[in-house]
Amino acid sequence: MTLAPASLVISHIGELVTNDPTHGGLLGVIEDAAIVASGDRVVWVGPTSELPDDTDAIQRIDAAGAAVVPGFVDAHTHAVFAGDRADEFAMRMAGASYEDILASGGGIYSTVRATREATLQDLVSASVPRIDHMLVSGTTTAEVKSGYGLDVETEMQMLEAIVAIDDITPIDLVPTFLGAHVVGPEYKDRRSEYVDLVMGPMLERAAPLARFIDVFCDDAAFTIDETRAIVSAGRNRGLDVRLHVDQLSRSGGTALAAELGATSADHVDHASDEDLAALALAGTVAVLLPGVSYAMRSAPPDGRKVWDAGVTVAIATDCNPGTAYVETMSFVISLAVVTSGLTPDEALWAATKGGALALGLTDRGVLAPGMLADMVILDAPSHRHISYRPDGALPLEVIKRGSLV
Amino acid sequence: MTLAPASLVISHIGELVTNDPTHGGLLGVIEDAAIVASGDRVVWVGPTSELPDDTDAIQRIDAAGAAVVPGFVDAHTHAVFAGDRADEFAMRMAGASYEDILASGGGIYSTVRATREATLQDLVSASVPRIDHMLVSGTTTAEVKSGYGLDVETEMQMLEAIVAIDDITPIDLVPTFLGAHVVGPEYKDRRSEYVDLVMGPMLERAAPLARFIDVFCDDAAFTIDETRAIVSAGRNRGLDVRLHVDQLSRSGGTALAAELGATSADHVDHASDEDLAALALAGTVAVLLPGVSYAMRSAPPDGRKVWDAGVTVAIATDCNPGTAYVETMSFVISLAVVTSGLTPDEALWAATKGGALALGLTDRGVLAPGMLADMVILDAPSHRHISYRPDGALPLEVIKRGSLV
Repeated sequence: MTLAPASLVISHIGELVTNDPTHGGLLGVIEDAAIVASGDRVVWVGPTSELPDDTDAIQRIDAAGAAVVPGFVDAHTHAVFAGDRADEFAMRMAGASYEDILASGGGIYSTVRATREATLQDLVSASVPRIDHMLVSGTTTAEVKSGYGLDVETEMQMLEAIVAIDDITPIDLVPTFLGAHVVGPEYKDRRSEYVDLVMGPMLERAAPLARFIDVFCDDAAFTIDETRAIVSAGRNRGLDVRLHVDQLSRSGGTALAAELGATSADHVDHASDEDLAALALAGTVAVLLPGVSYAMRSAPPDGRKVWDAGVTVAIATDCNPGTAYVETMSFVISLAVVTSGLTPDEALWAATKGGALALGLTDRGVLAPGMLADMVILDAPSHRHISYRPDGALPLEVIKRGSLV
Repeated sequence: MTLAPASLVISHIGELVTNDPTHGGLLGVIEDAAIVASGDRVVWVGPTSELPDDTDAIQRIDAAGAAVVPGFVDAHTHAVFAGDRADEFAMRMAGASYEDILASGGGIYSTVRATREATLQDLVSASVPRIDHMLVSGTTTAEVKSGYGLDVETEMQMLEAIVAIDDITPIDLVPTFLGAHVVGPEYKDRRSEYVDLVMGPMLERAAPLARFIDVFCDDAAFTIDETRAIVSAGRNRGLDVRLHVDQLSRSGGTALAAELGATSADHVDHASDEDLAALALAGTVAVLLPGVSYAMRSAPPDGRKVWDAGVTVAIATDCNPGTAYVETMSFVISLAVVTSGLTPDEALWAATKGGALALGLTDRGVLAPGMLADMVILDAPSHRHISYRPDGALPLEVIKRGSLV
């Protein structure tokens, strides 16, 4: 058998998680495996014993029994922002109410203030260390939302920062326009004007830079009708749809996401059985965010129930300065297992293939010929060590598009 | 002012946590601070503006606003062992009972088997990566217990491994003899013979290598009377006392620890208000282990209640292959805040000064002249970021006895 010229060969992988069901089971595990990449793509996977011997690779790695998994796909983040809210976190942990926090100048509007004050360069400089930490911890693709500008210029600057960081780092970033995060501070008594701004001038500027439109559909943010209108405007501009739904209470957002055929419905903490059945039928991916429940001391998402309802499940960090300053998918995998009832296999799948589906990406999340060579060599013999050792700093080498990071 | 010759000067520390109450508050924070070490000791702390200008240091670090905290003291670990139990963890997460796990060859006796099969060199090689990970994550002193041998030779080999790792790594390890972890597998129907073995030949060999004696005092392990006898024998050999108590149920161990004047009472999950009052009166330190509750999905220790009872509180990893494969104190600090109700300040104190007190060490856990220069420069402006960013990989530089690790 002759392969395309190989740029990277990894052999003696103790456990190769392919997510390709042709190899059996949910994760398609091959033991004592090898993988070959050419350029940015996988060209061969199989047992080390069957590795084509004419493979003349530039780089050869002997994994010496370590596990290899697909690169993590973090499908829900707000990782581009300025400032931090550590004091607010400490207040909340000491029992302060949301009203106390607002009175002390905290809450989402404090991040909006800091982000508005930042230049594009400030925003990039503040965010690159987070993105770098994500990458070295194994995340090879991440979605990032706007939504801390809430005015046309700052929303644009956030999207420009996301695009700029995508250009200057190896990670792939997927930009989402979230002008409808909360109502802009200048519009508190004129919310319909803010909705018009989002659907009109803001969207017009944002659409060329964004891949998705997102709305925080909740009693504390935007109504079902407002969400419907904003989503429709976004689709008219060519954006696909993801929605924050049913996080704080059941306001009907999950059902709306299913009705609209959204790519993903995120949070879904309070979705009913009927809501989940509708998601499953619509093929909308549920993105679970157990890091938020951890940091907010709230009930974790019931991953078991969502998975068993037949919904396609992704898990993500929700990295943001207010409710979950979480950067690594390995911690989220641990939380998904320990607090949300997924098995280690399901949690890994949800962090890789599930994340890719939640972003509508069909070229990653699976290690099979033709797919992107995005993968992680773990400092462990099995992916199960990710949840078994929740602070184990497991990634050993991260490979993005066939190149060692 | 003239200082002893300085070997290390760190200036422009945004927030120096000294744990020295003369600087105010629980943590004795000095802002825009500097610290000077000579050899392995701190010789000066104060504001950067007052840094003696005749300080002629070999190494100068500008912290550029980063926070500096005392090195973490992890007062309860079982970090020296062979093998792992990732499969058992996955079974438990999928709902398997303890009986199922035993039937599949899991449980503590599987670690005993693996540890008995290991040579001294195997044991050292398997454990050094864990100890190294602890060190680079900011732990500068750790207690390590025997207790996976349960026979004279293997218990001795575990203590020899602890001493060897202490010698070959910069971290300080404190060895504890825990022959009374559970009854040895050969003695299941002859438990009094096992107690005699522990108190007799095993202790005789172990005492010269160990600093403490420990007993797992619980319905599933050793009774109050057995614990009393073993502790007494240990004291006669010059060992101080720490006890595993009231972890699985209230069997009276916390009260016994107070009565015996143990240095520490560990777990104390089920201690009553009276038990805690007795600990406070005795000056016995409570070592809380929230990583166990996390990994076992059990109720977390009520740190708020223990602290408010006036007990001196430490927090520790309990690093072990069965119930908490946790290596970093930053994760434990996060858990102590988020799940056990300590404030970020209290959790940091418990991870540093509290840990030192739990090990009877008066030369560390505080950054003041004369104390060991064990400290961590954080990649953050405040120690509060440790719990705010639970997977933030915060340590930037670790300094052990005045030297950069």
